[in-house]
Amino acid sequence: MDSIKVKCPGTVANLVCGFDILGLALNEPADIMELRLLDEPRVLIRNRDAFNLPTDPEKNVAGVVLLSVMEKLGGQTGFELTVEKHIKPGSGIGSSAASAAGAAVAANHLLGNRFSTEEVVQFAMNGEKLASGVKHADNIAPCILGGVSLIRSIHPLDIISIPAPDLYVTVVHPQIEVRTADARQILKQQVLLRDAIRQWGNIAGLVTGFMKSDYDLIGRSLEDVIIEPVRSILIPGFDEVKQKCREAGALGGGISGSGPSIFMLSKEEKTAQEVEAVMRAVYTRIGIDFNTYVTTINKNGVEKIS
Amino acid sequence: MDSIKVKCPGTVANLVCGFDILGLALNEPADIMELRLLDEPRVLIRNRDAFNLPTDPEKNVAGVVLLSVMEKLGGQTGFELTVEKHIKPGSGIGSSAASAAGAAVAANHLLGNRFSTEEVVQFAMNGEKLASGVKHADNIAPCILGGVSLIRSIHPLDIISIPAPDLYVTVVHPQIEVRTADARQILKQQVLLRDAIRQWGNIAGLVTGFMKSDYDLIGRSLEDVIIEPVRSILIPGFDEVKQKCREAGALGGGISGSGPSIFMLSKEEKTAQEVEAVMRAVYTRIGIDFNTYVTTINKNGVEKIS
Repeated sequence: MDSIKVKCPGTVANLVCGFDILGLALNEPADIMELRLLDEPRVLIRNRDAFNLPTDPEKNVAGVVLLSVMEKLGGQTGFELTVEKHIKPGSGIGSSAASAAGAAVAANHLLGNRFSTEEVVQFAMNGEKLASGVKHADNIAPCILGGVSLIRSIHPLDIISIPAPDLYVTVVHPQIEVRTADARQILKQQVLLRDAIRQWGNIAGLVTGFMKSDYDLIGRSLEDVIIEPVRSILIPGFDEVKQKCREAGALGGGISGSGPSIFMLSKEEKTAQEVEAVMRAVYTRIGIDFNTYVTTINKNGVEKIS
Repeated sequence: MDSIKVKCPGTVANLVCGFDILGLALNEPADIMELRLLDEPRVLIRNRDAFNLPTDPEKNVAGVVLLSVMEKLGGQTGFELTVEKHIKPGSGIGSSAASAAGAAVAANHLLGNRFSTEEVVQFAMNGEKLASGVKHADNIAPCILGGVSLIRSIHPLDIISIPAPDLYVTVVHPQIEVRTADARQILKQQVLLRDAIRQWGNIAGLVTGFMKSDYDLIGRSLEDVIIEPVRSILIPGFDEVKQKCREAGALGGGISGSGPSIFMLSKEEKTAQEVEAVMRAVYTRIGIDFNTYVTTINKNGVEKIS
């Protein structure tokens, strides 16, 4: 095998109360990437989409991942990557993670799966470092593994899959720009112990809710007293969307990653569709362009499709 | 039925990374309480132990609980309580919670279980308020319910039982005084966001470890970067006990409640006994009197024994 095509799912990081430690994979949207081995140590990138991302591998998220794999190999192997992106860069649903994770998983396939999952995650994190300045794994891990991932620790890397029930995910991407680096910078470096206690009660509740398939508990635990109050200011319509989606029957939700996308979890498909209608109505009235998705949790992560 | 005898288990609150939100019940030590209905609205307390706790119900943890039940009843019913305490007051293994929870559960039994578990917890929390100035439930909840309890939230009260595998618990109570109120006062009111993130990763890991019966994950997650570094200063020998118990094979552990007791979890009974030997050796050498217990997680909570 010297060529592979993979589908790389979008992801929702943080999951409201789990800042920097939780994420889940989506069935839609997803990127398509095709990777081919070269017999010279270089990385070639071709874009088959309209996003105009850099093709210089050192400035491209997938490119730096492939360069790091190439460096590890230390021989005459290189890569030619063709990218068909569907997850909009800057949307907050793991566009850079899909590129990074897809490149790392595809390369590992072509190399006979010689690297462990942890090594693949480490390669992919180089892409996140380029995209946001921080080596975080809360999009990378669910993108690679599928389902809900807990990143207990980054140093050392400790990733745990959390069993979760079937859930519908509704996402709205209001097309404003929120840079991940900015969204990180406005956070306070100190938090009240009282708020931290409330937050870790919710995280424990959310994880327990997932593992017990207790939908009410999932809903009650989707509360963020630390990050959301600060970051939501960057997203017009956030409070209204959240309140109306809850009224429409969503279990709960909040900012996807560092925004501007907002996600909501629902138990039933019908509710997820009503939630989508609510999101559409709010952003139509405010007058901001948007995309919406009604999807489910992706259980497989980056997948070979040919 | 106008009289009941109950066994009220000791408890370990916080469980290292779960400050104020997690606790588990122990099979040993436990208090014995006998409660009898009176046909006049008063609370009588008799102590059948050597701890010399106040018998004035307004100054007694179980007493204030019974007074709050009596007030709720609003009629001519009162209580006569006989207490045989085995959990040393101030030991950090839920002595006040056992008194409070035992009184509340026993009273509810005698009254035909007319109150919900949540109401019983609320009655019992009045006892914790007297003991420590704070209405916390991380000892009360596991004492009443058995097993491992998550207190997701106090306002509104939201208690969730966390399934956990069989585990051995070794406890050492070095006989120095650490007042709960003091242990609370030395905590910083602000914490670094970076530390809070590490803490909630560990909490999510611990809960997942319990629910997956993943002993290694339980061990890795028993890390506290916020409370332990401050509170452990009040407990001579803490760092040495912790390090040597880990070397002896304990999964991990730390301060029980607000101390001074230290607890360690082990997968095997033999390890738990070796951990006990380590604890004994340290405090014998330091020259502080101590008690130790090697026990298991109590699954039933406060139990009627006659």
